[in-house]
Amino acid sequence: MAYVDIVTALALLQFIAFGMQVARARGKYGVHAPAVTGNEIFERHFRVQQNTLEQLIVFLPGLYLFAHYFNSLLAAGLGVVYLIGRQVYAASYVKEPQSRSAGFGLTVLPMVVLIIGGLIGAAIHLARS
Amino acid sequence: MAYVDIVTALALLQFIAFGMQVARARGKYGVHAPAVTGNEIFERHFRVQQNTLEQLIVFLPGLYLFAHYFNSLLAAGLGVVYLIGRQVYAASYVKEPQSRSAGFGLTVLPMVVLIIGGLIGAAIHLARS
Amino acid sequence: MAYVDIVTALALLQFIAFGMQVARARGKYGVHAPAVTGNEIFERHFRVQQNTLEQLIVFLPGLYLFAHYFNSLLAAGLGVVYLIGRQVYAASYVKEPQSRSAGFGLTVLPMVVLIIGGLIGAAIHLARS
Repeated sequence: MAYVDIVTALALLQFIAFGMQVARARGKYGVHAPAVTGNEIFERHFRVQQNTLEQLIVFLPGLYLFAHYFNSLLAAGLGVVYLIGRQVYAASYVKEPQSRSAGFGLTVLPMVVLIIGGLIGAAIHLARS
Repeated sequence: MAYVDIVTALALLQFIAFGMQVARARGKYGVHAPAVTGNEIFERHFRVQQNTLEQLIVFLPGLYLFAHYFNSLLAAGLGVVYLIGRQVYAASYVKEPQSRSAGFGLTVLPMVVLIIGGLIGAAIHLARS
Repeated sequence: MAYVDIVTALALLQFIAFGMQVARARGKYGVHAPAVTGNEIFERHFRVQQNTLEQLIVFLPGLYLFAHYFNSLLAAGLGVVYLIGRQVYAASYVKEPQSRSAGFGLTVLPMVVLIIGGLIGAAIHLARS
């Protein structure tokens, strides 16, 4: 499971990095807490972070379910696709929100495979026991 | 643990479905990224998704703690109550936000039982060891 | 792992408590769902809850990775620092958002130690196997 654990740690460090970009954008564009609106570029950084949060809550359990019922190396490989997809998503979203679809797809696809795979694996396990 | 894993996967697929309704509402009501306000119906869908995210971060660890220290079948049963409660919550919130209490209660109750149960179970385990 | 499980349950109960303060602020300051803006004090409570959510998604996996690869008692100890830091953060943010840095640092520091520690631990494990 060490490969899967490394992908988990990297995905969380990536999320922390997105959070640091939000903090920097807060200062740079003068958006004072508790506000989270008021500057378009700040809002793009903020939405990248929030959307990544929404994906992590699915991605991480999916990673472990898939690794447990199928194959941990394949799970980690799908995780690497997710990590790259998130970088593409973040960069394209900040540049132009309407161009975020490609990066988004690259993270949704492995995420859905992990979770559907985990569900099928658990159901097969149950049927056989 | 396979029952608990299946409930986990279903809860995450439910969350993905709520996210797809947010994306659809974005298009339907013309709320362009990065904005998350500007149309009341869009905001209802968005709040359903966000509130579900806030609950998943508690529900999933609670599910496993309860299953580990008490009973995995009972944990899965409480999880099914949560799943139904979330559907009721989502449907009622989108129709009329003030009517969301019943569905909300149906998801908070099993969530709190899982987490308090897990805490007590871990404390008992520690006291006995 | 029982110490780590207890810290997990306490961190989730703390998050639920922050959520209850958001609900109370909603009523007290007349911010009706689905709105999440319109009153400064409500927005402070809401941001405390949202920021805690952003930290929990990192803190919880970090806690278990560190406990797994290094030491579960030390992980739980870092978790207690996080719990105290979050209380300081919440109290100071609601009083005056600009004063939130000390409490924020007290939760980010153990969080980063847990996740970097977990990453190094997994990498060492892999190198030795």
